[in-house]
Amino acid sequence: MRLSRFFLPVLKETPSDAQIVSHQLMLRAGMIRQQSAGIYSWLPLGLKVLKKVEQIVREEQNRAGAVELLMPTIQSADLWRESGRYDDYGAEMLRITDRHERDMLFGPTNEEMITEIFRSYCRSYKDLPKLLYHIQWKFRDEIRPRFGVMRGREFLMKDTYSFDLDEEAARRSYNKMFIAYLNTFSRMGLKAVPMKADTGPIGGDLSHEFIVLAETGESEVFCHADLVDMGAPGTDIDFDGDLQPLVDQRTALYAATDEMHEPDVFARVPEDRRLTARGIEVGHIFYFGTKYSDPMKALVTHPDGKERAVHMGSYGVGVSRLLGAIIEAHHDEKGCIWPEEVAPFGVGILNLRAGDGEADAACEDAYGKLTAAGLDPLYDDTSERPGGKFATADLIGLPYQLVIGPRGLKEGKVELKVRRTGETHELSPEDAVNRLAERAFADG
Amino acid sequence: MRLSRFFLPVLKETPSDAQIVSHQLMLRAGMIRQQSAGIYSWLPLGLKVLKKVEQIVREEQNRAGAVELLMPTIQSADLWRESGRYDDYGAEMLRITDRHERDMLFGPTNEEMITEIFRSYCRSYKDLPKLLYHIQWKFRDEIRPRFGVMRGREFLMKDTYSFDLDEEAARRSYNKMFIAYLNTFSRMGLKAVPMKADTGPIGGDLSHEFIVLAETGESEVFCHADLVDMGAPGTDIDFDGDLQPLVDQRTALYAATDEMHEPDVFARVPEDRRLTARGIEVGHIFYFGTKYSDPMKALVTHPDGKERAVHMGSYGVGVSRLLGAIIEAHHDEKGCIWPEEVAPFGVGILNLRAGDGEADAACEDAYGKLTAAGLDPLYDDTSERPGGKFATADLIGLPYQLVIGPRGLKEGKVELKVRRTGETHELSPEDAVNRLAERAFADG
Repeated sequence: MRLSRFFLPVLKETPSDAQIVSHQLMLRAGMIRQQSAGIYSWLPLGLKVLKKVEQIVREEQNRAGAVELLMPTIQSADLWRESGRYDDYGAEMLRITDRHERDMLFGPTNEEMITEIFRSYCRSYKDLPKLLYHIQWKFRDEIRPRFGVMRGREFLMKDTYSFDLDEEAARRSYNKMFIAYLNTFSRMGLKAVPMKADTGPIGGDLSHEFIVLAETGESEVFCHADLVDMGAPGTDIDFDGDLQPLVDQRTALYAATDEMHEPDVFARVPEDRRLTARGIEVGHIFYFGTKYSDPMKALVTHPDGKERAVHMGSYGVGVSRLLGAIIEAHHDEKGCIWPEEVAPFGVGILNLRAGDGEADAACEDAYGKLTAAGLDPLYDDTSERPGGKFATADLIGLPYQLVIGPRGLKEGKVELKVRRTGETHELSPEDAVNRLAERAFADG
Repeated sequence: MRLSRFFLPVLKETPSDAQIVSHQLMLRAGMIRQQSAGIYSWLPLGLKVLKKVEQIVREEQNRAGAVELLMPTIQSADLWRESGRYDDYGAEMLRITDRHERDMLFGPTNEEMITEIFRSYCRSYKDLPKLLYHIQWKFRDEIRPRFGVMRGREFLMKDTYSFDLDEEAARRSYNKMFIAYLNTFSRMGLKAVPMKADTGPIGGDLSHEFIVLAETGESEVFCHADLVDMGAPGTDIDFDGDLQPLVDQRTALYAATDEMHEPDVFARVPEDRRLTARGIEVGHIFYFGTKYSDPMKALVTHPDGKERAVHMGSYGVGVSRLLGAIIEAHHDEKGCIWPEEVAPFGVGILNLRAGDGEADAACEDAYGKLTAAGLDPLYDDTSERPGGKFATADLIGLPYQLVIGPRGLKEGKVELKVRRTGETHELSPEDAVNRLAERAFADG
C-alpha cells in the first residue's frame, strides 16, 4: 500500500480524554475514531490489525474442531423470555422496539439463539458433540464506557457454544477450548494465564478466565509464576486425543482473580513463585450444564431411548478488546510494537526524499519485490519530512523499516531498522530486500 | 471438512413460506435460518458462500483503489440531524434509545458518518481523492420483509464513499466503481447490466443500478441485448487510466428500469436487440455532489486558497442479497449450481459405504490429497444411504462430486460427477484426484 493512497490520520497530540496507553496509541496511530460513547469506527490501520486478530481466533477455533456460523445482531425478546433472562439482564441490554411494536434487542451474547438453532435441528445423541461459534458485533450498554476498545459498548466477540450428552463429554469440549485459547493468545504474542472463575449457582470447577498480565489491567490477580513461564501447548496438538493432562498441568497451579482469591491457599505457593499482578481478561470459558437447555427444551434422545436436556458450555474471546491488550503488552514511548502475526503491515519503506529520481526508483523496486515476497509493505511515498516519517513508522509499529534516501544510495546503502529492538543495519538495497524476504530478522 | 463434524441441517421438504427458488434452496440446503421476520442466521454452509462473495467484493474494491475501514452499526441520531435525514427517513430506520436516553439508530447506510470522519481529518485538496468503503451489517425495518435474504431487514452491504474536489474528479471516482462493479459481479458468475437510475433532485447522469436478469426479478427492465452479451472489462484494467471509454461503451446502449423507462427511446433500439426482462438490483452507484458535505460542512481548501464543500458519491453492493441473486441465476430442480469462485466447497467426496475398509481408505486418501491441493473438499463420511448423499451433494451444489464405493473400487474405479453439466467420468482413484487437482474439469 502506498501511504499517499491510504487513509492514515495520525495525531500529533495525545488526546486528553484517553487514560490508558492502548487507547491513546490507537487514537494517535489513526486506528480508531470514537463515534459515540463506547462506539468506534475502525479506521483502515485498526481494521487491518482487527482482521488479523480475528483470523487467528478463527483458525484456532477451526483447528479445535469448532464450526463457524453467523448469528444476527438483532434478536427477538421472546427468545430471551424463554430462558428467563429478558427481565434479569438489566440496563446493559440495548432494548429496541421495531415498527410493528415487537420487542427486539441488540444481542449482548447468544446462548438463547444458539440453543434455539440447536433444538431446531438436533434431536439425537448421534448429532453430538457439536461445537459452534460465531464472530459478531455485540452491544452492551455499559453505564460508563471507557479505555477505548477495552470497555466499549459495541464490540467484536467470538463466542463458541458446545453441546454434549453429559458432563463428562462436556468436559472434553471444555478442554478443547481451554487448549485452543492458550494457542490463540500465544500466537498474538500474549501470555494469557487461565484463572479459576466463579461458576455461580451451577458450581463445579469448569469456568476459567484467561488473563493477560499488564500494569494497566482492570483487576488484581494472583498466580503461581510457573504459569506465566509455561509455553502454550502448541498447534500440533491432537484435539481428538486426551487433553486432560495438558489442562491439569495448568489448573494444578494456583491462579485466581481478586474475586476468587483464597489468600490461605495462595500462601502455600513457594514464596519466590507467588505473583501478584494486574490483569486484563481476554477470554472466558464456562460450562453451564442444562441452564438454557432445560427451560428452552433443547432435548436429545440418549442411547437408552430417553430424552434429556443437552449439556452446554460457552466460550468467549473479546476480539476487539484484544487489540488493546496487545498494545498494553507491546509498546514503548514511541508507539506500538506489534508482534509480527498481527502487525498491520509486514514492513515499511520510508522514502526520505520523494521526488528524487534515484530514491523513488530504489523505493519502487523494493516495494515491488517486498510485495511479491508477501510482506505487504506500506510505502511512505509522501512529501513529509524524514523526522515525521520516522515518527509515524514507529507510532504505528511497523516491525521493519527500510529507510531509503539519496545520501545513503550514493554509497550504495539503505538502512534497515528493526522496530522491536531498535537495531539498524546498513545494507545494500538488494541485501536488505533479500534478507527481509527471507525473514532473516524475524524473532519467531 | 468431514460432514460428520460439520453442521449441515438440510431439509427434505420445501418450506411452505418461501416463495422464490433462492429462498427455498437456501433454507433446504441448510444455509440460513430465519430468527425473526427478515433476520437470518447464516448457518455454516451459507456463511462459507457469504464470505466468498464478500471477499470478491473486497478484492475488487481494493483493486480499484478503495481503502477499507469499518464503521459501527449503531449511530447517533445527532449525526443524522446534521444532514436533515433523521426526520425524513421514516419508519424504515430502526430508532433506539440508550440507557442515558440518547437517540441512537441502527445504521441503514453511512453517508453521514463517513462525512463526519472525512471532515475530521481531511481539509485540503492534497487529501483528495479519497475512496473509502466498509462491509457492515445494516438494518432497514422493511414493513414486509420477504424473499429470504433478497429483502431482509438485517443485511450485509458494501458501501463505498468517494471524496473529490469537483464534479469532474468525482466522475473519475464514479467510473472506477462502475468498472469495479462489472468485474465484481462477473467473478461471481453474474451478468449485471448497468442501468440509468433516478438521480433525484440533483440531476445529471451519474447514477446507475446494476441489474442481474432473472425471471424472479423484482422489477421489469428494458435494455439493448448487446449489454448482456458484453463481457466485463477484466481485472487487468489500469484504474488510474482513463476509464471513460469503457463506461461510454456501456452507457451508450439503452438500459433502464421500469422507473426510468422511456418507451420512445427504447423503440429506437433495433427490434431484434430489444430485451424486456425482469431484474434483481445488486448494486447502485450514485454521485450526489455536495448534498451531505454542504449541511455537514465537510470543506476542503482548493489550490486557490478558498474552501468549498467536497464532492461525494456513494456506491453500494448488497452482499447478502447477492447470494439470492446467484442462486436465482444458477440452479436446477435438484438444487444450487454454484459458480466455482463462490462454491462453499471445491469438491465433495461421497463414501457410498462408510465403515467399509476399502472405501474408507480410498476416501481418506482422496480427502488428504484434495485438501493438500487446496480444493477444500467436503467428505461425506456419514452412514446416510447413497441416494441421500447424492441428493445432498446436488442440493448444496458441490461443483465436483467424487463418488467412491466398494463395487467401483473392485474394478479400480471411482466416479467423478460434474454438477453443472451432470456428466460423469469413470476413472481410477489416482486419475480422478489428479485431474481434480489440475482443475481439468473447470469451465473457467
